[in-house]
Amino acid sequence: MFEVVRVILTGKDVAVKIPAAGFNDEMVTMLSVLAIDAGGTSTRAALVDDAGNCLGYGHSGGGNPISAGFAPALASLAAATRMALESSPGDHTFSSVLIAMAGATSRMPRRELTERFIKLGLNGDLALESDLLAMFRSGTLSERGYALIAGTGSVAARVEAGTLCTVSGGAGWLLGDGGSGFWIGHRVTRAVVAFLDGRGPRTALTEALLSAVSLTATGERAHGRLRVLLDLIDVLYAIPPVELSRFAPLAFQSPGDTVADEILRSAAIELVDTLAAIRPAHADGPVVLGGSILGAMPGGNPVAQALATALDGAELIQARDGVVGAAVLGLTRAGVEVDVAIQDRIGRGVAALRTSATGGATS
Amino acid sequence: MFEVVRVILTGKDVAVKIPAAGFNDEMVTMLSVLAIDAGGTSTRAALVDDAGNCLGYGHSGGGNPISAGFAPALASLAAATRMALESSPGDHTFSSVLIAMAGATSRMPRRELTERFIKLGLNGDLALESDLLAMFRSGTLSERGYALIAGTGSVAARVEAGTLCTVSGGAGWLLGDGGSGFWIGHRVTRAVVAFLDGRGPRTALTEALLSAVSLTATGERAHGRLRVLLDLIDVLYAIPPVELSRFAPLAFQSPGDTVADEILRSAAIELVDTLAAIRPAHADGPVVLGGSILGAMPGGNPVAQALATALDGAELIQARDGVVGAAVLGLTRAGVEVDVAIQDRIGRGVAALRTSATGGATS
Repeated sequence: MFEVVRVILTGKDVAVKIPAAGFNDEMVTMLSVLAIDAGGTSTRAALVDDAGNCLGYGHSGGGNPISAGFAPALASLAAATRMALESSPGDHTFSSVLIAMAGATSRMPRRELTERFIKLGLNGDLALESDLLAMFRSGTLSERGYALIAGTGSVAARVEAGTLCTVSGGAGWLLGDGGSGFWIGHRVTRAVVAFLDGRGPRTALTEALLSAVSLTATGERAHGRLRVLLDLIDVLYAIPPVELSRFAPLAFQSPGDTVADEILRSAAIELVDTLAAIRPAHADGPVVLGGSILGAMPGGNPVAQALATALDGAELIQARDGVVGAAVLGLTRAGVEVDVAIQDRIGRGVAALRTSATGGATS
Repeated sequence: MFEVVRVILTGKDVAVKIPAAGFNDEMVTMLSVLAIDAGGTSTRAALVDDAGNCLGYGHSGGGNPISAGFAPALASLAAATRMALESSPGDHTFSSVLIAMAGATSRMPRRELTERFIKLGLNGDLALESDLLAMFRSGTLSERGYALIAGTGSVAARVEAGTLCTVSGGAGWLLGDGGSGFWIGHRVTRAVVAFLDGRGPRTALTEALLSAVSLTATGERAHGRLRVLLDLIDVLYAIPPVELSRFAPLAFQSPGDTVADEILRSAAIELVDTLAAIRPAHADGPVVLGGSILGAMPGGNPVAQALATALDGAELIQARDGVVGAAVLGLTRAGVEVDVAIQDRIGRGVAALRTSATGGATS
C-alpha cells in the first residue's frame, strides 16, 4: 500500500512513505512528526510539521511504564496521541513518532508499542529517547551542555555530540533525588513532626502543613504526645511517600522562616552537587534548568537564585515543556535541520495549544 | 465455680480466685502472671510466679495490631501464650495477663482480647501497657527516669511516678526515627548510591552493601550510569523501605571508614536529641537503653559510646528483653512488691528459657 521514496525536504535527504498510487506536492509537505513526553504523572503529545508548526496537542495521565506499568502507560500514550490528532486540522496520520521517557529505552516492548501506534495512524518509524535529552533540547540546540531537572525527583545529565552521555541523580525518593520536590516536601513534614515532638525548632511550616491537611493544633495530649502530632503522623503515612512532594510549595511560601529557608538552601546545595557530579567546574556549554522547583515563581525562586549564584558564569537556560524538546528530536531524526526559529515556533505553538487544551494549567 | 478470697502473699494483700470447693497451700502459691511483649516483628510471652520464677516462655511473630492488623496480632499473642503455657510444668491457667505494646492502649478491642485470653486459660483480668514502660521496667524499678530505645525505630520516654509521662521520637521511618536501625541502614544505602552516582565520596560501605545484595561492581555503563547502580536501585526499591534497617550492621562493620563513622556519629546525635526532647540536662533518674543499635557489640558499640559521652554523669542501664519489664509490671499490678531480687530472677529465667526455646537467638 505504501512505498518509500526519497525526497528533498528543507534541504535534507529524507525517506518518506507515500501511497503507492503516487504522490503530489501536498503529500510531500505533509511530513508530520508526533512527539510525546511521557512522564510519571502526565503525558503530553504534540503533532508538528517540518517548519515547527504545532498542528495538534493532547495530554493524559502518567505514561511511564516503570511507575505506571506497561498497559496503563500505553493507554496514556494512546489517549494523548488521539487527543493531539483530533485537535489537528489535517488528516490523522503521522510520518514518525518520538517518545521521550525516563529510562524507557530498555523497558518498553518495542514491537507492541509500534503496533499500537500504527493503529493510531503511524505510517513511519518509532523512536524512544531519554526525557532528559528532550528537556535539554527544549532549551537549546547546542551539541554539548547539561540539563538539571528538579521536579518531584531530581536528575542531571551531560550531553555530548547531541546524545546523552552521563547522568547523575534520579535514584528516586528513597535513595536519591536530593533537592527535589519530594526531598523538600519530606523535610517540611519531618521539620513539623520534630517541632510538635519537642525535637526541633518552632517553624511557620507547622501551621502551613496542619492547615494543608485540615488539622488544628490543640494542647490535647494522648499517650505522652500531642494529639495533633499523632493525627498528623496518621495522615502523612496514609499518603504514598513520593507524594510528600505536594508539601514542597509550603517551604517556598514561608520566606523568612529559618527552618524553611534552611531546607531550600540545602536543596540548592543538593542540586549543585547533583550537577557537579557530571559537570566539571567552569565547563563549556549551556545548563538547561527544568522542573517546578527551578521554575519561575512570583517574588522569585530562592532555590534557582542560589543555584545561579553557585553556577556563576554558566549560561543558564530555562527549559520549556519536554514535549517541545521531543518534537525537536523527532524532527531532527526525520531529517529536518531544526534551527532556533523552528524551535521557538514549536515552543510557542505547544504553549498556545496547551493553554487552550488545559485552560492554562501546566503539567 | 470460683470465689475471690483475700490472702497475704509476699507481704501484700492480694485478691486471688480459687475454686469455690476450697483452697489449700499449694493453690495459694499458684498466683501466676502471663506477661507479653508484643512488638512489630516478634512477640514474647513469659509465665511468672510471684517470686519471679519464670515458669514458661513462648515466642511468635509480630503482635502489634498497628503494623500487623488486629487478627494476625491476636493470633501471634495466642501462639506465644500457648507456647509459654505448654512449656510450663504446672497447670495452664494464669491469674492475670499484662500485654506491653506500642500505642496499643487505644487500638486493641479490649473485649475480644479478654475473651480470647479467657479461652487460653486466663481466670483474672487483663491489662495493656506501653512497651516503653515495659522496657524501662526491664532495667530499673525506679519510679522516675527515662527510656531510650533504638531498634528498627527510635523513641524516648520519661517516666514519672511509675507511669509513662512524655514520649518523643517514634514517628516511624518516614517522619522520624532519627538514629534508628532504619535511619542508619537508609543512610548506608544512600551513601553507596551517591558514590556510585559520582555524587558522594568513596566508602567501604559500597563493597559491603553490594556483597549483601549479591551484586558485583563492574565498569559497565547503561543509560549514562553504571549498570551496577541501576541494578542496586532496582534491588533496594524491591525491599519494603523500613527493612533498609537490615543494612545498619554494615555501618558498624566498617570502622575507620569516614562515611560509616559519620553516619554512626550522626545517629548518636539524633538519639541524644530524641532523649533531650523529654529529659532536661542533668535530670535525675536512670536512663534505660534498649534496642539493637544501643546493645553490646564485639569490639564495642560506637553509637552507645558516643551517647554515654554526651550523657556524661547519667546513670545508664542496659535494658533486658521487654517481656521482663512486662512481667515486673504484671506482678506489680497483681499486688506483688517486686524488688531487685525478683526482677533479676525474672531476667535470668527469661534469658534461660529463651535460649532453650530459640537456640540462643534473641528477638
